[in-house]
Amino acid sequence: MLKFELIHQSTRSGARVGRIHTPHGVIDTPNFVAVGTNGTVKSLDSRSLKDIGLQLMFCNTYHLMLQPGTEVVKKAGGLHKFIQRDMPIITDSGGFQVFSLAYGSVADELKSRGTKKSDGSVLKITEDGVWFRSYRDGSKLLLTPETSIDAQKDLGADIIIPFDELPPYHIDDDALAESLERTHRWEERSLNHHLKNPNGQAMYAVVHGGVKEDFRKKSADTLSKLPFDGFAIGGSLGKTKEQLYHLLSYTTCRLDEAKPRHLLGIGDLESIERSIPYGIDTFDSSYPTRAARHGVLFSDQGHTKISKGCYKEHFAPPIEGCPCPTCAHFSAAFLHHLFKANELSAYTLATQHNLYYMVHLMERYRSAIKNNEV
Amino acid sequence: MLKFELIHQSTRSGARVGRIHTPHGVIDTPNFVAVGTNGTVKSLDSRSLKDIGLQLMFCNTYHLMLQPGTEVVKKAGGLHKFIQRDMPIITDSGGFQVFSLAYGSVADELKSRGTKKSDGSVLKITEDGVWFRSYRDGSKLLLTPETSIDAQKDLGADIIIPFDELPPYHIDDDALAESLERTHRWEERSLNHHLKNPNGQAMYAVVHGGVKEDFRKKSADTLSKLPFDGFAIGGSLGKTKEQLYHLLSYTTCRLDEAKPRHLLGIGDLESIERSIPYGIDTFDSSYPTRAARHGVLFSDQGHTKISKGCYKEHFAPPIEGCPCPTCAHFSAAFLHHLFKANELSAYTLATQHNLYYMVHLMERYRSAIKNNEV
Repeated sequence: MLKFELIHQSTRSGARVGRIHTPHGVIDTPNFVAVGTNGTVKSLDSRSLKDIGLQLMFCNTYHLMLQPGTEVVKKAGGLHKFIQRDMPIITDSGGFQVFSLAYGSVADELKSRGTKKSDGSVLKITEDGVWFRSYRDGSKLLLTPETSIDAQKDLGADIIIPFDELPPYHIDDDALAESLERTHRWEERSLNHHLKNPNGQAMYAVVHGGVKEDFRKKSADTLSKLPFDGFAIGGSLGKTKEQLYHLLSYTTCRLDEAKPRHLLGIGDLESIERSIPYGIDTFDSSYPTRAARHGVLFSDQGHTKISKGCYKEHFAPPIEGCPCPTCAHFSAAFLHHLFKANELSAYTLATQHNLYYMVHLMERYRSAIKNNEV
Repeated sequence: MLKFELIHQSTRSGARVGRIHTPHGVIDTPNFVAVGTNGTVKSLDSRSLKDIGLQLMFCNTYHLMLQPGTEVVKKAGGLHKFIQRDMPIITDSGGFQVFSLAYGSVADELKSRGTKKSDGSVLKITEDGVWFRSYRDGSKLLLTPETSIDAQKDLGADIIIPFDELPPYHIDDDALAESLERTHRWEERSLNHHLKNPNGQAMYAVVHGGVKEDFRKKSADTLSKLPFDGFAIGGSLGKTKEQLYHLLSYTTCRLDEAKPRHLLGIGDLESIERSIPYGIDTFDSSYPTRAARHGVLFSDQGHTKISKGCYKEHFAPPIEGCPCPTCAHFSAAFLHHLFKANELSAYTLATQHNLYYMVHLMERYRSAIKNNEV
């Protein structure tokens, strides 16, 4: 079972250093969680991933349900064994994908002025759950709190997420209130279903409420009464970063400090820096790995777009002074060349760099918090 | 400089075990040479490649001329330094790509009944060299024996190839005779240009003559009189495998046994098995790596197409008993899943397996030859 050890609370902010103990080892917090949607971080093999020292990997139940099917993973002996990972894994409920494929992102919504609600794959939302159409074969599928948890039991991740509804950003208060109540009922059903057979897994509640302070507080208070092992901040996190930080300012302080707090789907460097002082412990995002595949390398001095012409004859490391396996061995010019030549190894080398950067950035945040500098 | 050490000559056939010493280490022969067109074996980083123990890598001058440009590689300190490889490299002259882009493969020719000669990128062949159009930006470029060798000097591979003409398979005897004479003149010019500044590099002659016995013999005899360091069997190697084996039967025996012999562009398992008894020392081919990216895994029992439905729940290794890093760690079901989910790591894992298989297959051939079993 999960155990959260609070090691240091900053005297300067809500930032804290902790250690999450799971059946597959420790996660030092604050930490970054790489996304491995299909059970693999894109373009990395598990050995490279292990060398980088990434402690927690985020896999998507929705994708694994459709391919290879969670029953296949179960037969393999669970996700850790199937993908040969001996470190912690977290899975989501599948709800996020189902709803975000239907509603699109906030940016999508803004482009279509908030009217795009009907052309997604969600067919019907009932008290029981959500009917949706598979993006793979068009088949009609029902996802409920119970089926989501069953799927996550098949996968066997160390940390699992209850089934929730992701309402669109543009929603009126009545509809959001209704969605929030339903989400709370779904989360409680998920928890009850999970607790029939905990099997060493931990479940984080997902705090909803969009960008409405009273709704967020209500969600935090409601879910705090239930025996969840930790909290994830989910739902619509606003259309601007300031909305996110504001939302965190009144949400995390209501959560039991003895339990870990995860921020769902946020992993850009600025948001991490600004969210840590509110006591966020873990962040998952596909941004560092996706950026890498577009040739964008992270560093303390900002982002480097390695395919830019100025790197053609730059024979120094891609990021000067970086000790990652990519920068330690290869020049910016070589990485530039691999991107220009569309070589697959370009993605591997860039992904190694960005993940290494994230892992060590979080390590530095932990030191800084211990010194009460954050 | 290159030194070839003949270790054992089979008492049963022309097969032999040797060792090619180069400035970047040893190549045990017979051996397989992986293709890393743009300076990287597709989908592998250099560390994985090193672990596999691949002793010789084949890079394509034509591609490197166009991207990043051989002058960039020269400024980087040569190809070994640019790609961070400390083991031997061979480069070709660029001629093969220029001509094969123009004429297509034998298969292409057969489809268009041998008439497809004009819609390629070759603009004009003169005594000086060949004018062609860059596939990257449409610019007009001239490749001559001297410019090809200059480019290969910039790259600095351990073994280089003289500039030659690749005539189409369908060609009348007069045209082939004319092409053969020109190729011999071009090869001699290449050699002379190379010898002005050998710089530790070795040059293999390319024996031409298509599938005509008298032409092949003439080519072998003509080139044998020149101080090349080894031989490559090139040009049209026939449209059937039997034509290839027949061609080898009368060609290799005319070549100085004290020099290494390379078979250009042939690397399927059957051709390797059948060519070794004619005393071929090295084989380059993109087939094992390309097959891997299509999910085809090599084994002694034949090819395994891992995306086939029967592997969905096959939790044993992809190839039972294979000690490669892929088969030692992952199941067939996981690799099947990665291919189905279009994950880039699928290509990496499959490529690791096939290259490992090739390296160890060649090791077994060397043992068998030493025991006079081949």
